[in-house]
Amino acid sequence: MNLLEKTIESIGPQDQEWRAKARERLEQLTMPHWALGRLMDLAEDLAGMSRSMQPPVKRKAIVTMAGDHGVTAEGISKYSQAVTQQMVHNFVNGGAGINALAGCIGARVIVVDMGVAGDLEKLIQTGRVVAGSIGKGTQNIAAGPAMSREQAIRSLEAGIAVALEHDSSTDVFGTGDMGIGNTTPSAAIAAVITGLPPAEVTGRGTGIDDDQLEHKLKVVQRALDVNKPDPTDGVDVLAKVGGFEIGGLAGLILGAASRRKPILIDGFISTAAALIAHTLAPAASDFMIAAHRSEERGHRAMHEHLGKEPLLDLNMRLGEGTGAALAMHLVDAARAILTEVSTFGEASVSEAEE
Amino acid sequence: MNLLEKTIESIGPQDQEWRAKARERLEQLTMPHWALGRLMDLAEDLAGMSRSMQPPVKRKAIVTMAGDHGVTAEGISKYSQAVTQQMVHNFVNGGAGINALAGCIGARVIVVDMGVAGDLEKLIQTGRVVAGSIGKGTQNIAAGPAMSREQAIRSLEAGIAVALEHDSSTDVFGTGDMGIGNTTPSAAIAAVITGLPPAEVTGRGTGIDDDQLEHKLKVVQRALDVNKPDPTDGVDVLAKVGGFEIGGLAGLILGAASRRKPILIDGFISTAAALIAHTLAPAASDFMIAAHRSEERGHRAMHEHLGKEPLLDLNMRLGEGTGAALAMHLVDAARAILTEVSTFGEASVSEAEE
Repeated sequence: MNLLEKTIESIGPQDQEWRAKARERLEQLTMPHWALGRLMDLAEDLAGMSRSMQPPVKRKAIVTMAGDHGVTAEGISKYSQAVTQQMVHNFVNGGAGINALAGCIGARVIVVDMGVAGDLEKLIQTGRVVAGSIGKGTQNIAAGPAMSREQAIRSLEAGIAVALEHDSSTDVFGTGDMGIGNTTPSAAIAAVITGLPPAEVTGRGTGIDDDQLEHKLKVVQRALDVNKPDPTDGVDVLAKVGGFEIGGLAGLILGAASRRKPILIDGFISTAAALIAHTLAPAASDFMIAAHRSEERGHRAMHEHLGKEPLLDLNMRLGEGTGAALAMHLVDAARAILTEVSTFGEASVSEAEE
Repeated sequence: MNLLEKTIESIGPQDQEWRAKARERLEQLTMPHWALGRLMDLAEDLAGMSRSMQPPVKRKAIVTMAGDHGVTAEGISKYSQAVTQQMVHNFVNGGAGINALAGCIGARVIVVDMGVAGDLEKLIQTGRVVAGSIGKGTQNIAAGPAMSREQAIRSLEAGIAVALEHDSSTDVFGTGDMGIGNTTPSAAIAAVITGLPPAEVTGRGTGIDDDQLEHKLKVVQRALDVNKPDPTDGVDVLAKVGGFEIGGLAGLILGAASRRKPILIDGFISTAAALIAHTLAPAASDFMIAAHRSEERGHRAMHEHLGKEPLLDLNMRLGEGTGAALAMHLVDAARAILTEVSTFGEASVSEAEE
């Protein structure tokens, strides 16, 4: 059995007993019943994931995976492919949005090269970027598969390896992506797995205009027509219309779930990875926390497919893990509610009269 | 000129030049245009409030004001009036929801007695509760005015005094409330100032059932019929259908705005106070940040009246300042975006091709 199969097999659901134990305490806290709403839902989730009434949340890591996409040849982005590599340098130099938001919550940023079309050797040798590259960018999905099935499995396993490597030093994971053109494969994945037409899941990415959007839609449709991915087979979807960083993120999610660690799912691309992970191991979604609803069209449908309601909705559409980093504060808050608030009995406060 | 008049006179709008300066930088950050959405709007607001490209946000204070309400005699709450005082003890002992959430963001909690029907002398003498009491609870608004006009002004000035007292040690304020029965006066204030019928702004408070809600609605309607508050006169609205902690919070907001400090407006009760403050000094709303949308019916209409879109929507309905504390993390994040993210030029990242 390979690493992917072993990981999938080891993913179990949230623990109902620990959820019930947390719920019992939360219902006794000095406040009207469930008055902190989704923070309390999240506290219950954390107890069910960690099997603990003191869910560990302190050590946080955003894993930002980068990869390039052959489909940029179709002119679906406003930015040139070179920006992927430039942004990796920006990440390691601490100048990107994710660095600022991870810094606010004390999360480390782990940058992984899953398939950037450029030379990152120096950053890898100095340990500033994790080596995970499956190739120098995918093939053009509008003309054929993004990668081979074997490469798809390797990208998933590279992501699992990152989760396992950092498991002992991380309580809460977050996903992040960088890859010029990657809203196109993500829209294709969303269309395949949710069964919705491309027009309902394809958005403006970095900010293309109406004409460009019409063109992008045709590219997504062509990717589906040319490749005919099997929606029940996550590896097939990933190989045919995915991306190396998307495979890496799907693997990261599976790896985190196999270690019962909460993982905050960032935006549109990360949620496409979550769809792949969910297709491979439905129970993995018990460890996913939908961080935010991106402005990108189709994100809502992806969350609905996963049965998730995102925590934040702030008109963001950056990726990198920025939404995941922001929502980590809510994870801290949920733990604090569970562990620090007194019950009616403890605080001698009178309960409601029925 | 009294303190209230002086304070109102000293409130000016956000500074358009500093907003423009911030916007210029935000538009050059290494990301697609405005890709961090509302965090960037908030960063622009902070620059306009503070007249700085490094808006100070570090020193945070949640001011939780407590008061009792004569209208509890009408049986509009599930909890007995004694709970207000019990919760004040819970706050100073660190066992309430607000303590946990303020702790997560490093905010101090300042508890103010604006009119609790109980003896808090010991807590006041030991400096754990700030003295601001206008009386041992208001009169029953279903039978007459909550307080005299003179008391209303005193409650506003007590709130202003708290803001001025803590101004030199506080960069960001947050509002919080405690007062059994206080969703009833808040609904009455909302109905008067927004002009909506009580049914559209009256909710379940701590969790009353359908019959109790119907009764509560009648109480709100009676409060309006008996008192006929003048919607253009914030002091009249406060005196006739308000509460001492609501007046204190309205004053706190005016005081913070007069010192150009951002103030996070918590839930339904705090937003009722914000409506009063806005009626007295429309420019004060330039310093208000709507922290969250509560589950309480009518909160949306109040935000619309103020022209505010709340940052968070997490099915919360606790008050105490919990929503304000939670949203303080977004204020930190907005500042970090403005001050820590590199521009395209600084990071040598290629801009979008048009």
